[in-house]
Formats: sequence, C-alpha cells, structure tokens
Amino acid sequence: MSIYDLIIIGAGPAGMTAAIYAARRKIKFLILSMDIGGQMSWSSDVDNYPGIPDLAGVELVKRFNEHMKEYKIQVKNEEVKSVQRKGKTIIVKTRKNTYKTKAIIIASGKSPRKLNVPGEEKYLGKGVSYCAVCDSVLQKNKIVAVIGTGNSGLDASLLLSKYAKKVYLIDIVPKITGEPYLRDKILKNKKISFIGNAKIKEILGNKFVNALRYEKDNKKLMLKIDSIFIEIGLVNKSDFTNVRKNKWGEIMIFRSTISNEENFTNIPGIFAAGDCTDIPAKQIIAAAGEGCKAALAAFEYIQKFKSWI
Amino acid sequence: MSIYDLIIIGAGPAGMTAAIYAARRKIKFLILSMDIGGQMSWSSDVDNYPGIPDLAGVELVKRFNEHMKEYKIQVKNEEVKSVQRKGKTIIVKTRKNTYKTKAIIIASGKSPRKLNVPGEEKYLGKGVSYCAVCDSVLQKNKIVAVIGTGNSGLDASLLLSKYAKKVYLIDIVPKITGEPYLRDKILKNKKISFIGNAKIKEILGNKFVNALRYEKDNKKLMLKIDSIFIEIGLVNKSDFTNVRKNKWGEIMIFRSTISNEENFTNIPGIFAAGDCTDIPAKQIIAAAGEGCKAALAAFEYIQKFKSWI
Repeated sequence: MSIYDLIIIGAGPAGMTAAIYAARRKIKFLILSMDIGGQMSWSSDVDNYPGIPDLAGVELVKRFNEHMKEYKIQVKNEEVKSVQRKGKTIIVKTRKNTYKTKAIIIASGKSPRKLNVPGEEKYLGKGVSYCAVCDSVLQKNKIVAVIGTGNSGLDASLLLSKYAKKVYLIDIVPKITGEPYLRDKILKNKKISFIGNAKIKEILGNKFVNALRYEKDNKKLMLKIDSIFIEIGLVNKSDFTNVRKNKWGEIMIFRSTISNEENFTNIPGIFAAGDCTDIPAKQIIAAAGEGCKAALAAFEYIQKFKSWI
Repeated sequence: MSIYDLIIIGAGPAGMTAAIYAARRKIKFLILSMDIGGQMSWSSDVDNYPGIPDLAGVELVKRFNEHMKEYKIQVKNEEVKSVQRKGKTIIVKTRKNTYKTKAIIIASGKSPRKLNVPGEEKYLGKGVSYCAVCDSVLQKNKIVAVIGTGNSGLDASLLLSKYAKKVYLIDIVPKITGEPYLRDKILKNKKISFIGNAKIKEILGNKFVNALRYEKDNKKLMLKIDSIFIEIGLVNKSDFTNVRKNKWGEIMIFRSTISNEENFTNIPGIFAAGDCTDIPAKQIIAAAGEGCKAALAAFEYIQKFKSWI
C-alpha cells in the first residue's frame, strides 16, 4: 500500500481550500467527501464571502469546485468509516478502501440533526427534507411543516411561504426561539401558523408524505401535509475519529507551542479545520481560512516526517 | 467626543473582511488605512483565493473594495499614530483626529523589508523597487535583478520575465526557497537565471541604477542591471501599539478561555488579525478568515461592554 502525504476528509470550504493548497504544493494527496460544498450549498444567499458579493450558496460551491478543477483535483466520493494512528502513519478506512497517509485534515463539517421518528428515513426525498433552500421551489401550492423555531427554522418558513399555500411552524417548546427580528416577520406572515408544545410522533404517507402525527397538551393530533422540513440544528460528522472533542462533539484544535501553527488536534498528524472544530466562527470565509492554515501546518508536519521514519 | 463601537486599523484582506462583517452587524464603526488592499496589491497573480481563480492582486483588491461599497463602507485615509486603552475605552490618534472606541481590530499588515545596502535608498524609484507588480511593465527589454527566492521573489521573477530581456534571481542561500510549484515554473523559464550564495553589497548607478555589486564564493562580482526588485520579506507596521508582540514584532494573539473566541491580544478590547499577528499562515484567505473571526470576537466584547459602564 503506497503512502499518501495527506488525506483531506470533507469538501466544504475548509476541505476545498486545503486541497487547493495541497495541489499547489504538489504533494501526494486525496480529498474524500460524500457531499461537495457541505453546508455552503444550503444558503440561499451568501453575501459575506469577501470579493464575491451576493451569490447563492450552490453557485459559490460551483466556483470553489471550478477552482479545484483548475488544479485537476477530483473529490473521491467515499465515506470515511475510521481514522486510526498506527505507528507513525494514519490509516483511513472508507467503505471501499483502506488508505495509509502521513497526515490528515478533518474538515467534515456538520450535518442536519434528525428528529428520529418513524417515517423520517422512509420518506427522505419523498417529502422529508433537511434543506429548505434546495427544495423550496418544489413546494408550490403545497402544505408544508417546518420543525424547529431557531433561526434556521424561521428562515426556512419565510422562504417556503413564498411558494407553499400553507406553512405550519412547529416546535416542542411553547415559544419561537429564534431572533426577534425574524420572529416578527413570521408573526406578520399570514401563510405561517405557529404550533408550540408539539411533539412530533410519526411521519405518515403512501408513496409520498401526506400527514404528520403529533402530541400537544396530552392530545394525539394529526396534520395533513405534503412535506416536512426538519430544522432542529446540526450535528458533527466526525464520529469516525477519536480525537479529543468538546462537550458539543466539536474537535478541539490547538496551537503548536513549537511552530505556532494552529489546527493541531491532540493526535500527531491529525489536523482539523472548519465547522467540525471548536472555533466559534461558523462562517464560510473563516472555514476557508482555517483550511489554509491547517494545510500549511500539515505541510510542515509532512516535511519533518521524512526524518522520523 | 462620540464613541465608536469598533475601529478597524488596516484595509488589507483582514481589515476589509472585518469591515464587511461590522457593516452587516450594523454597529458604529470606522476603517482607517493609508493603503487599501495592502500586500494583496503586490501579487501579480493570486490563484489561491478559493472561488476566484487566477486574478491579479490589484483586481482582487477591487473586488473586495466593491464588496465594501455594497455596504457603503468608506475607508478613511488616516495614518494611526497611537492606540491607548484609557479606562474602559480605547483612544485612537491619527495625524488628523482623535477617536474614542469600545474596541479595535488591528489589521495593519506588513511592509517590505529593506536590504540595507548603499544605493538602496538613493535609487528608490530610479531602478530600486519593492513592488514588481507595480513596476513590471516599465521593464520592457531591460536587465533586471530580483533579490530573494521566497514565493514573492519567484512571483516577481515570473512576472518580470514577461517584460524584461533578462532576469537574475539572486539569493544569499544556495537554493530556491519558495513553493515547488513556482520553482518548477522558474526553472523552465529561459529568461531567468538563478544565482545562489550571493551576498548583495551595493547598488550602483548614475541617474538610474546600472549595476549591482555582490560577493559569491569569496569573489567580488559585478552585474550589469537596469533595475532591482527587493523581495526579501516584510516588516510589521504596528509600532503605534504596545500590545504584546513576539520576537519578530508580530502581535501575539490568544484564544479566550471563556468564549473560546480567538484574535484577542493581551489588552482587553484590542483584537488583531492577519499578517500583523503571529499566525504563521501569511495568506490572503487566512487573513480574510482571521478578519471574520476577530470581528465576531469584537462583537461579543462590544455587546458585553454595555454592562460594564
């Protein structure tokens, strides 16, 4: 098994930036991802990536991807199952392959949190969605439920109300939890009705979703819907590694006291960048910057590697 | 004197990104700079700012500037003379004005390092330059020396080779130190000759530069040239502040143990981002990311400010 210099896990802004830097450095590397763009794809409008004002998230993903193609970088569509340090090298296992590498950068981002109710998995793509931005235009004249009243739920409801006939905004808590600015917009919108204290029990349907079963004030209730958007937050996608994490499951990154480089994890050779880490700034430009920093830290590590083996 | 929420010092990628975030947050802020774009303007080709492949540095500066204009941000052309914390606020003095602010972000970047040899100052603008990008088109059919083989020296040599008849790439070290990707391009370029182990002693001329005196292998040598581009690194532009710095004069930034936000200096309310800091990644995308992170850290600080006074 030949050894890679670097394997990048994830192709969001952090991973793609790291890949561009790796290609320029002409090292032997791979980038693995099931989902090019990551969360970037879900933003309807990105207007805070400096130099590229006011562009849809999916379009920004295309620009990053075209930039990678300029360097002939191809993302391998493989899901990482495990990452283990073994001696001086790191073994990365996917469903299809086993790779050996000197260093890795984990830039696996976050993914939507699931409701974990019957029907959720069965009707995924058949009425169940985690991405209002992606699927909003398909909701013309439909009855839609949005679960979660944080900012992303409110954002989704406002967007969906432009297409859908009716939007039910549902949460397990009694009141809307998102920003007052967005809440006020929601309350003024006649297409949107808020249902608080409601616990979702099941998503029902035939070929497609057609109803929602929930409990409120000890009553079992049903709601006729055509689709359901689940917006109850994000979870980390880094279960494949046992590097040190904080209480939210984010990878803790450190600054080297020797080189002053950042983006080190507690395991030598494993670097991390972007939204999967404990950096509070969950922003595209910050993730891209972190991807660059992790790449430079990894390059230095790889250079020293020669003298170790 | 009315109080600002935030003053940003510097309008390179870090400062401009912080300004875009500040404008979106609708806080009362200023951005001060004598030099919009900073070092970004000196790059002939920027091909590692993800999403915007292969663009001249000055053009990338324009894109950032246009993005700021979308938010009606105007850079104030004032040079900062001092920054002093006084009680709970910070006083920023320029040649023209005195400002009071709750927080500042120092993003003052770096400027070119000098060779410190006879003739360097005398012939500045008469054959001596620190900016190949600015002066390359003037080198048509000329014989040019580039001092320094880091990425900026290689970049300068490649650019100058498009115009000049001959480019001597000179360094005090034996080998080219920049990225392999650029080095390979240099070695393939027939107009460029590399001279290693060479110590520059003097820049000679009449009205304009006409020769270079240097030592190599204990021999005193002369080189007939028409101009010389000095690309031997950078010095900090943050003498106006007494925040803690490392041995290279870079502002040391820290991570808050409370909020986990980064870009804190040792003085409360003073944040720093980009190439003026001790972050080793001196890259446009990294600086922009740091500008975002510093802005978010400053916003949190400003919010808490109310409860302190």
